[in-house]
Amino acid sequence: MNTKELKFFLKKIRDGKIDIETGINKLRNLSYIDLGCAKLDTHRELRVGYPEVIFCQGKTKEQVKTIIQAMIKGNANILATHADEEFFAAVKEFCPAAVYNPLARTITMTRKKLRPSKNYIAVVTAGTSDLPVAEEAAVTAEISGNRVERIVDVGVAGIHRLLDKLDLIRGARVIIAVAGMEGALPSVIAGLVDKPVIAVPTSVGYGASFQGVAALLAMLNSCAGGVSVVNIDNGFGAGCMASLINKLK
Amino acid sequence: MNTKELKFFLKKIRDGKIDIETGINKLRNLSYIDLGCAKLDTHRELRVGYPEVIFCQGKTKEQVKTIIQAMIKGNANILATHADEEFFAAVKEFCPAAVYNPLARTITMTRKKLRPSKNYIAVVTAGTSDLPVAEEAAVTAEISGNRVERIVDVGVAGIHRLLDKLDLIRGARVIIAVAGMEGALPSVIAGLVDKPVIAVPTSVGYGASFQGVAALLAMLNSCAGGVSVVNIDNGFGAGCMASLINKLK
Amino acid sequence: MNTKELKFFLKKIRDGKIDIETGINKLRNLSYIDLGCAKLDTHRELRVGYPEVIFCQGKTKEQVKTIIQAMIKGNANILATHADEEFFAAVKEFCPAAVYNPLARTITMTRKKLRPSKNYIAVVTAGTSDLPVAEEAAVTAEISGNRVERIVDVGVAGIHRLLDKLDLIRGARVIIAVAGMEGALPSVIAGLVDKPVIAVPTSVGYGASFQGVAALLAMLNSCAGGVSVVNIDNGFGAGCMASLINKLK
Amino acid sequence: MNTKELKFFLKKIRDGKIDIETGINKLRNLSYIDLGCAKLDTHRELRVGYPEVIFCQGKTKEQVKTIIQAMIKGNANILATHADEEFFAAVKEFCPAAVYNPLARTITMTRKKLRPSKNYIAVVTAGTSDLPVAEEAAVTAEISGNRVERIVDVGVAGIHRLLDKLDLIRGARVIIAVAGMEGALPSVIAGLVDKPVIAVPTSVGYGASFQGVAALLAMLNSCAGGVSVVNIDNGFGAGCMASLINKLK
Amino acid sequence: MNTKELKFFLKKIRDGKIDIETGINKLRNLSYIDLGCAKLDTHRELRVGYPEVIFCQGKTKEQVKTIIQAMIKGNANILATHADEEFFAAVKEFCPAAVYNPLARTITMTRKKLRPSKNYIAVVTAGTSDLPVAEEAAVTAEISGNRVERIVDVGVAGIHRLLDKLDLIRGARVIIAVAGMEGALPSVIAGLVDKPVIAVPTSVGYGASFQGVAALLAMLNSCAGGVSVVNIDNGFGAGCMASLINKLK
Amino acid sequence: MNTKELKFFLKKIRDGKIDIETGINKLRNLSYIDLGCAKLDTHRELRVGYPEVIFCQGKTKEQVKTIIQAMIKGNANILATHADEEFFAAVKEFCPAAVYNPLARTITMTRKKLRPSKNYIAVVTAGTSDLPVAEEAAVTAEISGNRVERIVDVGVAGIHRLLDKLDLIRGARVIIAVAGMEGALPSVIAGLVDKPVIAVPTSVGYGASFQGVAALLAMLNSCAGGVSVVNIDNGFGAGCMASLINKLK
Amino acid sequence: MNTKELKFFLKKIRDGKIDIETGINKLRNLSYIDLGCAKLDTHRELRVGYPEVIFCQGKTKEQVKTIIQAMIKGNANILATHADEEFFAAVKEFCPAAVYNPLARTITMTRKKLRPSKNYIAVVTAGTSDLPVAEEAAVTAEISGNRVERIVDVGVAGIHRLLDKLDLIRGARVIIAVAGMEGALPSVIAGLVDKPVIAVPTSVGYGASFQGVAALLAMLNSCAGGVSVVNIDNGFGAGCMASLINKLK
Amino acid sequence: MNTKELKFFLKKIRDGKIDIETGINKLRNLSYIDLGCAKLDTHRELRVGYPEVIFCQGKTKEQVKTIIQAMIKGNANILATHADEEFFAAVKEFCPAAVYNPLARTITMTRKKLRPSKNYIAVVTAGTSDLPVAEEAAVTAEISGNRVERIVDVGVAGIHRLLDKLDLIRGARVIIAVAGMEGALPSVIAGLVDKPVIAVPTSVGYGASFQGVAALLAMLNSCAGGVSVVNIDNGFGAGCMASLINKLK
Repeated sequence: MNTKELKFFLKKIRDGKIDIETGINKLRNLSYIDLGCAKLDTHRELRVGYPEVIFCQGKTKEQVKTIIQAMIKGNANILATHADEEFFAAVKEFCPAAVYNPLARTITMTRKKLRPSKNYIAVVTAGTSDLPVAEEAAVTAEISGNRVERIVDVGVAGIHRLLDKLDLIRGARVIIAVAGMEGALPSVIAGLVDKPVIAVPTSVGYGASFQGVAALLAMLNSCAGGVSVVNIDNGFGAGCMASLINKLK
Repeated sequence: MNTKELKFFLKKIRDGKIDIETGINKLRNLSYIDLGCAKLDTHRELRVGYPEVIFCQGKTKEQVKTIIQAMIKGNANILATHADEEFFAAVKEFCPAAVYNPLARTITMTRKKLRPSKNYIAVVTAGTSDLPVAEEAAVTAEISGNRVERIVDVGVAGIHRLLDKLDLIRGARVIIAVAGMEGALPSVIAGLVDKPVIAVPTSVGYGASFQGVAALLAMLNSCAGGVSVVNIDNGFGAGCMASLINKLK
Repeated sequence: MNTKELKFFLKKIRDGKIDIETGINKLRNLSYIDLGCAKLDTHRELRVGYPEVIFCQGKTKEQVKTIIQAMIKGNANILATHADEEFFAAVKEFCPAAVYNPLARTITMTRKKLRPSKNYIAVVTAGTSDLPVAEEAAVTAEISGNRVERIVDVGVAGIHRLLDKLDLIRGARVIIAVAGMEGALPSVIAGLVDKPVIAVPTSVGYGASFQGVAALLAMLNSCAGGVSVVNIDNGFGAGCMASLINKLK
Repeated sequence: MNTKELKFFLKKIRDGKIDIETGINKLRNLSYIDLGCAKLDTHRELRVGYPEVIFCQGKTKEQVKTIIQAMIKGNANILATHADEEFFAAVKEFCPAAVYNPLARTITMTRKKLRPSKNYIAVVTAGTSDLPVAEEAAVTAEISGNRVERIVDVGVAGIHRLLDKLDLIRGARVIIAVAGMEGALPSVIAGLVDKPVIAVPTSVGYGASFQGVAALLAMLNSCAGGVSVVNIDNGFGAGCMASLINKLK
Repeated sequence: MNTKELKFFLKKIRDGKIDIETGINKLRNLSYIDLGCAKLDTHRELRVGYPEVIFCQGKTKEQVKTIIQAMIKGNANILATHADEEFFAAVKEFCPAAVYNPLARTITMTRKKLRPSKNYIAVVTAGTSDLPVAEEAAVTAEISGNRVERIVDVGVAGIHRLLDKLDLIRGARVIIAVAGMEGALPSVIAGLVDKPVIAVPTSVGYGASFQGVAALLAMLNSCAGGVSVVNIDNGFGAGCMASLINKLK
Repeated sequence: MNTKELKFFLKKIRDGKIDIETGINKLRNLSYIDLGCAKLDTHRELRVGYPEVIFCQGKTKEQVKTIIQAMIKGNANILATHADEEFFAAVKEFCPAAVYNPLARTITMTRKKLRPSKNYIAVVTAGTSDLPVAEEAAVTAEISGNRVERIVDVGVAGIHRLLDKLDLIRGARVIIAVAGMEGALPSVIAGLVDKPVIAVPTSVGYGASFQGVAALLAMLNSCAGGVSVVNIDNGFGAGCMASLINKLK
Repeated sequence: MNTKELKFFLKKIRDGKIDIETGINKLRNLSYIDLGCAKLDTHRELRVGYPEVIFCQGKTKEQVKTIIQAMIKGNANILATHADEEFFAAVKEFCPAAVYNPLARTITMTRKKLRPSKNYIAVVTAGTSDLPVAEEAAVTAEISGNRVERIVDVGVAGIHRLLDKLDLIRGARVIIAVAGMEGALPSVIAGLVDKPVIAVPTSVGYGASFQGVAALLAMLNSCAGGVSVVNIDNGFGAGCMASLINKLK
Repeated sequence: MNTKELKFFLKKIRDGKIDIETGINKLRNLSYIDLGCAKLDTHRELRVGYPEVIFCQGKTKEQVKTIIQAMIKGNANILATHADEEFFAAVKEFCPAAVYNPLARTITMTRKKLRPSKNYIAVVTAGTSDLPVAEEAAVTAEISGNRVERIVDVGVAGIHRLLDKLDLIRGARVIIAVAGMEGALPSVIAGLVDKPVIAVPTSVGYGASFQGVAALLAMLNSCAGGVSVVNIDNGFGAGCMASLINKLK
């Protein structure tokens, strides 16, 4: 339940449209549901503005299944990240409406109609190889109700490609800049626009990229203000942060 | 010149209130001014929403003086960071209006009247030792025209202190959470509020804190969404990012 | 042989219930047994309070088999860690009583009846993905004769789940807190209880978690006193340490 | 207030020995006192078993003074760590009873009479250079009401010195083992005794000791069970953990 | 002696203009001169194209003096790097012609007239704080007989400053790009010009810049071809490499 | 289009040999072609002296195919690196002229006849295991129109092998020195020749080689001037840099 | 050819037992043989006391085959390390006398009869999992003509096992001490014997052992003199070093 | 007492030249002397072949004084390392015979006449800046009774200097090779001689030398066999190890 739904629910109680017994049952699960292997945080959307998300890595298929089945009983849109094809096959069995994005490695179930925001989030990538992380960010933002514009392969090796797309980037309310290797893109963008830039380092590269550490450090040391950084390959975190910013009134 | 000032200027040209010659001289410095040891980016405020800031570390007193003197000829509010008492003494000589904040190690000159925003930024610290970095963030945000609320010493070793201040934190539009050592504060806050959290690791600690690396890593790996991170001890960057977010309409 | 058994044995010698020859044979193996590929430390339980444990990683199946067969000739409860299904199959062949815990990846053989302690050890995990490590700790503690209470998925992203279980955690004599990612859980617990907390970082996470280093550093830098740390993913070490503490009179 | 004192206080209220007004004033400060630069956690002793401790590093003398003056109004024993001679001089001015330990770099004020425990904590060092950290651990343990036995300079380069002191070490309820360089001491001790060992790496060494990282890693990778580790040079943390263990009933 | 001088010398021997005895004495020192604390590599210029250079750090003033005095007996231009004011004072005593560059921290003695090349080396810096390293590169290149163009403070936070200087940069035969913090400048330049770029990371920055490691990694991972990298703050190495390239026929 | 081709094209326009419509269509793609998953930088050769190269790692076969098909419509020689046999099979299907080098893991298509330079680049390896990286460098240099001399297995463990090949190395215009393990080869070569040396560390080694970090650091710290370094295993970057140097007039 | 063989050969020349032509052919290969993919250092044994050894990792089977076939034409004993079963199968085909040690992962061919030294090298391991590295050291030492005594599984968790074998260890001329995890064994041994100790860290362990880094650092920081260290898992290097020491007269 | 002295002493007892009471007093201190702040290992020379050495760093002047005064009562030669001028002044007061080596930073007292060995140890340095570490090694070896030959500044930037000294190096029984920066010297030497090489990395360098880590890694990864390594700047350890080897019969 988000804040709006909670208000709606409490009004119904006040107006006698929901009887007390039903109300108690409903509220009993407001805090969390104990699934044995997990405590589903059903209170999260009300508290922090987005529902719990399933991070599949390190979980068994059985555990993921248990969690999703419990979530389906609620009403939130469902997002599972770091999900490979096998996880999706397991989910698909009991939930035919589930959708898989093989690039982003996400499973989504849209249970409440999405009404995309008018403001948009720009998701910009330095290279083609950064697409999986960028796509995870975009999917996360979209299922949270944001409009997203994707701008692909505009890294600093050919900066005219970036300049060519500058108006589209400047028009966004918040920018997610995704880059591996030397991770220069967010700094260059932040030097050209007056919007907050969320930098996402990716593990694209080899040798002294140290699985994304080079890009991470570059972004943390940006000489341009207005840049903050999430974990390497953390498209989800960037999407989440951008959504909170984009929804500010 | 920021966008508003530029509009005002162009209207005056249109209306003949400023003659062409004067206009040309004014615009000549719109892009940057070459000072020899530096190229003052006078175009920055118009482009990215905040004027150039002087990072004193690694510069000589003479260089800082040259840059500030050039900035004074403009009209922007001036902020110098990482400035020790000696730098301030040198600036004070030719600029008596300069103000020094010894905790934040900033020099400020307020040349355009600040009209603080209605929305506020919450600057929260885990411990007393994190105050210098937090204060740099607060000073940066304030000189950029934001209202700031400071909440001090509410780290996770005594979490009731944090819960006691939760309403004040929740009321902010964006939160800057400053912590050294294990850096858990931003994760705990982000699990309790529905606003973007900018995490600032500090170098407070010793041994395996590795001058703030422990806190930095903890913040990058936050299990809570809605957290993004700036460099260790980078109060300025956090203040800058928060200001961009707080000013979004 | 543990201290109690050794006393019992020496009394029997004194009372003539065991003849000298038999006694000598028994004591000959008190120190260690040379198996060629290993020197089985049969003296360990007497010396440090728990019998030798087989760390399977890096050993061949043949070596593990040799060691377990030698241990079976003694009387101690047997624990093998880091054992995959193949190791278990090999052990099962000659030891049908062996039990495999696929989550903890342990093989156990309970040869002396366990009489669980009245005091209990609380094993607390931040997330579902931390369960394998937590389970290794719990299995280790249980086969050493301790009662264990498991509290799952109470990480700081939804701190109300932790507060809800606080009484159960406070009731323990010693707490094992298992967490990956930002590793904040042990600090938060240690700020709320007056019992020793053994922190176990896990390799759960990605990117800048550096296979558990982020969590390890966070735990080493805990701002709360009363926390000490074991190696990343070292459920065994935590169970062992907790058992020594729980058994103190 | 610790648990015992709280009981005593509540009984007095019940018995009318303290009037309600006085009681309210007393309890008002039970949670924390806001000092501006810090929130003194007056509730800590009641909650976690030991009062708040002042970590001087990164604080100004003025801040430390403010905090200690507030603590003096309470009744707890006071411990300040990482305090150099200058801090002590500042404290001495308003608090003549303060005691400085130059080796441990601690300031202590014993306000409640210490009744040392019967069980003792053994503090063992590998070398003479490890003494400052060991002494911080000992001072912390002693002001928390524990008896401490110090065993100095018994590192593995001359292991007969350790074996000579083994009975004294075995007699402790919990052992703090302090070592720099290769950090082997805790492993060797833990292989010889049946008590929990808290390992403290020190920054003693040079080159590839990396200010204590070598010792830290060695201790985390101990092949002996029953070892857990605190931060490099963290004598305070070790003393705190050992005290919690030693006080278990 | 460089190749040209050696040819000249051998011709003189052939033509009888230098007698054999004198020739032998001259050639005796061709290989190296043993100074006790050092073996002066007098053969270096002939072999690798530039004379030996004195790296002052870690040497005593006495040793530097001994080496320079031996070099003065030869005919090469002399360059000492990492020299503070004290070293210069010591050199100045016996060598009044020595010149000190306080920014570059170099001592130079021009003993053979410099005839600057027609082609120039562009030395470009991201910020004002990078000047000391850039200046060391420029001094090294100049004393090796190269023309140098300096372009200061054109980092990516205000990329229009770089674009404004692009013609001057493109006109160079080889480019030295000096940057600290996120180290993006060499990548951006290499994406815009068709000349070899030598990237020099500087230790400018703080926190996660790790004394220049962030910039170093960024440069090693440049997405643009045509970039190679020297050590952090290694202006000398960059000047040397650029000189070898600039002198290629 | 490179500079020569562009001149040729513009002359044809001037002379009416290409009509305006055709010209416009041709120039439309001069900047970049948007392929959805990538923005092909068709302007690169004109700008930086070599055409865009496909880095296969992290891309799908479908993406690589799309990019190569777009490049085939142009006229440049094509180079794809980090390509395994599967990528080659996919390319071979639609482009039978493609050539695979299994050691270098490159795919090449020579579409403009190569006219190797008279000057040559020496590619020198320390050991046999360094051959794949060396070969990538050689292939890159060759398809860019350079003559290459390969000198294999002349590492410092048997330095007479290197001295034996010194004349061949000295004859080059620029030297690529490839080494793993302790990475000493470039320093030794740079101490013996007067040409620029591009050092390429390889990930050959184990343990404390840290996948090439040991070699990388050794090369960055070369005591010999005239060495600059590219990323670990970055044969492509070295070939690219060497080609730019070799083509200088 | 080693020194002895070379003397023998030159005497035969002197005495006319080998004619000049044959002599020239023999000496032609004294320096190195160029195999295309490698330069076989046939001069190595004469120069450094042991023949070239084939490090298989990173080489193709074809390359290893070429090298071994060339070595077979000489007379030296052959050792190939880091060889898996597949390499052995390939070698076995053309060289039926080759012997494979699956634990050490070595291929050996004894072509000159080994006459083991009277002095022996002690190879001591901390645990069973360290055996592969220890065995590589032992095989290397044995094929170089040394007697080896193996002492297995005497790590510090049960130090009585080490003390029990002390006489055998003290009797050696040089000791190879092999340990993973906390790597304490070499320090403890070096504190007990008056012979040089070569420490070999192994990658045995997990988590913060960082693939042997913990053990490596511990060994480098040994508080006992008389310890030097080779690379992680470098059994070969240790065997080689020990052999050079053991053969000193 | 070393072995020889112990034999001599026991013979005197046997022959009645020392009475029993005197003998007991003498032997009482054979094991160790407890000095409070240290346990002087008087048994060390007998056990490991060299007497205890005082590592001054991290000790107070008072502690060093106490230890030296206790050692003076014995008969061993005394060596204190890492001693600055202040330590020496303090020692000089009560021990006028003490000698200070300011380069090596050692204090020595020769109490038993040194009879240098016939075999010598070669101490070789790459550069002048490596002299302090090399000198510590030489002093250590000399006070242990070895002859030492010093060869200075023969690093790989001018390899002819090394080749010129090859005979002197080859004549040694064991070689200590000291180098900072890229640390290539030990590998090159080990490829040219048939004696054990002890490599000592120094912290000479800057930037990516990481205070000697670059040299350390290079040495650990030496492609030449017959190299083992001690800690960064550990001249003492190298001297100690070389002495043990040089004294082997």
